[in-house]
Amino acid sequence: MVNSCGHCANCRTGDEQYCLNGMVGTYAVTDRDGTTTQGGYSTHVVVDAGFVLRVPAGIDSAAAAPLLCAGITTYSPLRRWGAGPGKQVAVVGLGGLGHMAVTLAAAMSAEVTVLSQSLKKQEDGLRLGAAHYAATSDPDTFAQLAGRFDLIVNTVSAAVDVDAYLSLLAVDGALVNVGAPAEPLSLNAMSLIGGRRTYAGSMIGGIAETQEMLDFCAEHGIGAEVEVIAADAVNEAYERVLASDVRYRFVIDTATLR
Amino acid sequence: MVNSCGHCANCRTGDEQYCLNGMVGTYAVTDRDGTTTQGGYSTHVVVDAGFVLRVPAGIDSAAAAPLLCAGITTYSPLRRWGAGPGKQVAVVGLGGLGHMAVTLAAAMSAEVTVLSQSLKKQEDGLRLGAAHYAATSDPDTFAQLAGRFDLIVNTVSAAVDVDAYLSLLAVDGALVNVGAPAEPLSLNAMSLIGGRRTYAGSMIGGIAETQEMLDFCAEHGIGAEVEVIAADAVNEAYERVLASDVRYRFVIDTATLR
Repeated sequence: MVNSCGHCANCRTGDEQYCLNGMVGTYAVTDRDGTTTQGGYSTHVVVDAGFVLRVPAGIDSAAAAPLLCAGITTYSPLRRWGAGPGKQVAVVGLGGLGHMAVTLAAAMSAEVTVLSQSLKKQEDGLRLGAAHYAATSDPDTFAQLAGRFDLIVNTVSAAVDVDAYLSLLAVDGALVNVGAPAEPLSLNAMSLIGGRRTYAGSMIGGIAETQEMLDFCAEHGIGAEVEVIAADAVNEAYERVLASDVRYRFVIDTATLR
Repeated sequence: MVNSCGHCANCRTGDEQYCLNGMVGTYAVTDRDGTTTQGGYSTHVVVDAGFVLRVPAGIDSAAAAPLLCAGITTYSPLRRWGAGPGKQVAVVGLGGLGHMAVTLAAAMSAEVTVLSQSLKKQEDGLRLGAAHYAATSDPDTFAQLAGRFDLIVNTVSAAVDVDAYLSLLAVDGALVNVGAPAEPLSLNAMSLIGGRRTYAGSMIGGIAETQEMLDFCAEHGIGAEVEVIAADAVNEAYERVLASDVRYRFVIDTATLR
């Protein structure tokens, strides 16, 4: 996000990402001056001063890059729905978003469980700070963890069984989607009513909150786990992203751009 | 609700309605002593002292009866999701639940809008305290009210277009179902993500909160709008309920039981 109207109700409360006049994305959209945004794959980018963030000393540039997307996308709902000491937080999916959600929730002192299709990345999950790791392909998982979580952050963009995940929530628990499946989801109202449960969604964060996230990461020595590539490796990297073969984000070294 | 286990996490926090060992309904379910509950259509009923409520002086008995169901079912989510001064609250459906939601939300000083299929009950809605009344059968309604509400209480038990109602919420707004459609509902995750919106559900309330609701009603001179009938009129009344021909609850006078 590189711009917004600055005067609507949401911009005024620091929620520029929900600008009522349309926030301006970094990539290939019409900016407020009529020009088209050109993306961030460049050595320099001109943006409104209000949308510039300070990367604190102590965070490596490459590790900081995905924080501006996967970092804030997961930090914001974790904060909003109260991840912290004594809270049971589950993260669905251990990819680019999920690995940040686990890292951040653990740094907030929540007790973190990864819910992943298989146990393939269990070692990574525990190393990132998860206390527990469960396979959603195991039919026992949903029975064993029923009613357990205060917050589930769903980072998966495929359609999931919403009722099954809602059944894992305690009373007043929230399932928050940060991944956006293209197809509509189905759920039973009783899955919500039966425990005053919440199904919600969240999209990146405001600029002030993004700065707060960067400062939090610096304070806790947190960065994204990245594989730095040269610009001429993007096609290969793209194929690997499609094959889920990246732990956990590719970062393009802009020094290799020409 | 006439009983619960009393010692689970939810009972201990006053949410007996979500008792992890199963709350005991008033009607025809197995109580904790193995007997079957016999319902409330009687001159006397024996229940655990912890489930007895005090009807404050000043509320007519007949007007109080539906408060124990429609009253608490709507009071609880209005309180939990912050209905109050400066808040835009919509109530979907003006039936037994809806007329209490409107009355209570107005008494909490929220600005209330009724969203009903037609304008047939508009006069009632405004008299109960609504500031606005809109017909959901009018295609303009959803465009005109887009992004307006902080809270929408959906009292309709039929399947509704969830995405359409979510589009009426402001950032951080909540759509709360107290009606429970039998069939699964469909929604698009982007309807939630695009404004950090919440879709939630709520079921009656705990005993302490139910007493609080009764006291609130007494303080504000609120009761349900009822039509009192004799016991031998229940079959006719039932047909009228099915035909939506009741404003807004029937109450059986137990003095006519024999």
